[in-house]
Amino acid sequence: MAETTRASDPGTGTATPDAHTAPLSEFDRDTAVRRRARGEFETVIADGWSVFGAVNGGYLKAMVGRAVAETLPHPHPATVTAHYLTAPRPGPAVIRVETVREGRTLSTATASLTQTDPDGTEVERLRVLATHTDLTAGPDEVRTTAEMPDIPAYEDCVGMDLAPPEFLRDAPIVHRLAGRLDPDCVGWAVGVPSGRAGTRGWFAFADGRPVDPLALLMVGDALPPSVFDLGLSGWVPTIELTTHVRALPAPGPLRVALTTRNLAGGLLEEDGEVWDSAGRLVAQSRQLARAPRG
Amino acid sequence: MAETTRASDPGTGTATPDAHTAPLSEFDRDTAVRRRARGEFETVIADGWSVFGAVNGGYLKAMVGRAVAETLPHPHPATVTAHYLTAPRPGPAVIRVETVREGRTLSTATASLTQTDPDGTEVERLRVLATHTDLTAGPDEVRTTAEMPDIPAYEDCVGMDLAPPEFLRDAPIVHRLAGRLDPDCVGWAVGVPSGRAGTRGWFAFADGRPVDPLALLMVGDALPPSVFDLGLSGWVPTIELTTHVRALPAPGPLRVALTTRNLAGGLLEEDGEVWDSAGRLVAQSRQLARAPRG
Repeated sequence: MAETTRASDPGTGTATPDAHTAPLSEFDRDTAVRRRARGEFETVIADGWSVFGAVNGGYLKAMVGRAVAETLPHPHPATVTAHYLTAPRPGPAVIRVETVREGRTLSTATASLTQTDPDGTEVERLRVLATHTDLTAGPDEVRTTAEMPDIPAYEDCVGMDLAPPEFLRDAPIVHRLAGRLDPDCVGWAVGVPSGRAGTRGWFAFADGRPVDPLALLMVGDALPPSVFDLGLSGWVPTIELTTHVRALPAPGPLRVALTTRNLAGGLLEEDGEVWDSAGRLVAQSRQLARAPRG
Repeated sequence: MAETTRASDPGTGTATPDAHTAPLSEFDRDTAVRRRARGEFETVIADGWSVFGAVNGGYLKAMVGRAVAETLPHPHPATVTAHYLTAPRPGPAVIRVETVREGRTLSTATASLTQTDPDGTEVERLRVLATHTDLTAGPDEVRTTAEMPDIPAYEDCVGMDLAPPEFLRDAPIVHRLAGRLDPDCVGWAVGVPSGRAGTRGWFAFADGRPVDPLALLMVGDALPPSVFDLGLSGWVPTIELTTHVRALPAPGPLRVALTTRNLAGGLLEEDGEVWDSAGRLVAQSRQLARAPRG
């Protein structure tokens, strides 16, 4: 895909492309799954969604989420938990989905993503437990005390693609996303962390693909970890990531706020909130992760 | 158990009773599981942990957590997610545990609790995905911006057993717990909700049993739902409940703060924070639940 297309304004992203005529988005191409048997899907973990060799956990979760969505009768993930077991590598993978229950308004499945080692051993990478619903079927009433994070306009935030070339070379996921960070939250990148342990910014796909509930599964794991703002650096391996999808997002980039409040015993939590252009809280995420050594 | 014992100060609870001499606590008795085959446990859902006929979801999660703890090599739940599928009833149940991965510092299992219908059909009640660790093995460093909730002293809070007799008759769980509520949070009980959607109070077992990581699995689901404070009432059925256990609790009652920030599409989230007497954040919980109709 040409660089000019990547740099296109994600705010102009329109409806889901027509599967028969429009080219697949990078996200749809790289999370595609092919059913090979009942409850069993083949896929390929792409090499474009990594940072320093670690495949993004949100991307993997969305990929498994697609296989779950092809299995359950309800279209939208309502609450999805992924436990990350071993580090995946780009290449072929198998996803197995087991339906746990099909109810009238909710349905539940477990899923497992595995890869086969060079010696032929099948190794599980992540295990998922997901409950789906139809987000268009609920009542319209909203009662909320949650406040949309105060983030400068998309144009006034810092593109992640402005990172140093030596970082970008090993962080291809940055080119898949048109993520932008609140200038107040990027001090860590130049050695001046704020100490607040917060990341605020915008999430969008670089090729303008709209963010739907499936894509929301990765949003809480797609910006730099909030603990970088404490002056810590290095890999922050996710142990578990739970996402609640609360509404269908309106078009346009999404406001994301990540916060870590407690680092203890070598572990930390990271809470994510995702807001759409209509000012609705569309997803909440929480992960438990290993604290980086740095 | 005599009423005088129930009313004993839970702050005097000492170490875990010696299994050979001390009587089992109510919690240990009612969450006991018996292994009947590899990965398969028998248990009995007690009738003392219900509110208006609905068995408490936190109690069920702790019961399944006990079977998981008997299976995995690491002693303490680090992150446990339960999806509630169908409404259980007091009586026999079977828990099946499958080990997903055993690592050096973490291990993961799934578990399922089922009951058999009168017509002989086995029905699944909840599905659990759990990762365990050894909470004593991590580094001592704590970096936190989380602030302990400001709750009046245990003695100055309102015992849940002061509820009207017609409520207590159908809420036997109140007698298992020595829970107390911040007087500021109980206006809903007399028809004057604050509108803040918060519940703050103390959690302890009525018989003085210390709260350990297993018991923490129920803490985020053991006080009145925070949406009662919005003037809503009725059953708030949990769809999914995730608990992170962050530290071993010090002895004594625990401060609990529950908050709901967003009710939309007929669903709501409820976040729980649990603090011990040493001022440490020992657990964080989040649930997705159906909003009550009331």
